[in-house]
Amino acid sequence: MSGTFRVVGLGPGDPELMTVKAARLIAAAPVVAYFAKRDRTGHARTIAAGQVGAEAEELRFEYPFTTEVALEDPRYRAEIVQFYDACAECLAERLRTGRDGVLLCEGDPFFYGSSMYIFDRLRTEFRSEVVPGISAMSGCWSRALTPIAHGDDVLRVLPGTLDEDGLARELSAADAAVIMKVGRNMPKIRAALARAGLADRAVYVERGTMSAERIMPFVDVEDGPAPYFSLVLVPGRQGVR
Amino acid sequence: MSGTFRVVGLGPGDPELMTVKAARLIAAAPVVAYFAKRDRTGHARTIAAGQVGAEAEELRFEYPFTTEVALEDPRYRAEIVQFYDACAECLAERLRTGRDGVLLCEGDPFFYGSSMYIFDRLRTEFRSEVVPGISAMSGCWSRALTPIAHGDDVLRVLPGTLDEDGLARELSAADAAVIMKVGRNMPKIRAALARAGLADRAVYVERGTMSAERIMPFVDVEDGPAPYFSLVLVPGRQGVR
Repeated sequence: MSGTFRVVGLGPGDPELMTVKAARLIAAAPVVAYFAKRDRTGHARTIAAGQVGAEAEELRFEYPFTTEVALEDPRYRAEIVQFYDACAECLAERLRTGRDGVLLCEGDPFFYGSSMYIFDRLRTEFRSEVVPGISAMSGCWSRALTPIAHGDDVLRVLPGTLDEDGLARELSAADAAVIMKVGRNMPKIRAALARAGLADRAVYVERGTMSAERIMPFVDVEDGPAPYFSLVLVPGRQGVR
Repeated sequence: MSGTFRVVGLGPGDPELMTVKAARLIAAAPVVAYFAKRDRTGHARTIAAGQVGAEAEELRFEYPFTTEVALEDPRYRAEIVQFYDACAECLAERLRTGRDGVLLCEGDPFFYGSSMYIFDRLRTEFRSEVVPGISAMSGCWSRALTPIAHGDDVLRVLPGTLDEDGLARELSAADAAVIMKVGRNMPKIRAALARAGLADRAVYVERGTMSAERIMPFVDVEDGPAPYFSLVLVPGRQGVR
């Protein structure tokens, strides 16, 4: 009988923010897989350092590129598909021998995570389970002591990669918003927030729940590129006082 | 010296989905507060049953009403403000004696939670911390094995209390959506999903991660009122395969 495949969320960075279930499943897993960028430990593997068993077989899935190949480049799609195929096959070989396998995922796996591509390839052949994790945005609004949504607020989660008009339009009509993928989009995000009249309400959080965390009013943020782990919170209207 | 006030998220229902940090803080807390509806144990208190210490002083905050007084009724606002004032004062009295206190919260406290009203009243006087929890929507899309958002998707979180036009408009322009507060709004949600052409893609989840969980295509759901713990998922576009 084949093993069970589990996609396990680890939360935003602080290892204590993983769930009790994630901690239990990782500690018991004979096969532990994770994504990593070239020459890096891998954020998910770092968070799970206290749980991964000494006897576990570890599968390191190293992305073939990070930003060297643009998303629009046809090579990107071809290479990333091959990469995910290879990762899935690597896990499948272990699962077929009857061993259970976990795929470690930072944040919440099914909320903008790469793990879904592996899950998609394995779900028909193997018993599968997904363990949710605390999302980066949730870690950030908690650390910033900033309630994000109240009552009947509509919350919009926006990638900073939208164009300025798109961002400004989405922001203008939102009660509350989170802007992810800030990176090199800071000047555009600043312009869109200003057009929507929301710059003064916005809060910037960098590396939320991690040791180098920075939290500040958005208006105080410098205009250079932000690190990967950064986002902007626009809290909703205030509720009952 | 006063005690520390901690707002602690417990996740969507399965006690194993609380974080390692939440479990540790609750077990160590000399004062444990929670909201409950009249004649009910309280969902948060139920989830934390395995952690609350035998010696802890428990503060049960019973809502003065649930649905007997309409939100629009001026009495609602007056009474709920008094209620939150009294809850906060009850906690403050314990914190002033130097004891730490936790407020148990289902889901993620700062994502549509009542706890923010207590936090708002205590944050200036006491050291405060917020521990995020797995949101109901995250528990639901994980259990439904339904990745919700990919790549540059915009995700909209919508209350089912919006009017049909508003819901249809929000849904039509969303890549991915979650509809919360389904309750008695099912016929309206059905009409809005149909107008947006999304009924076939939508998934209904009731009591996600709990023992009486039900997951089904939205088109198979009966039209009667849904229980409090139910929501509708509209997954975003499919990503790289």
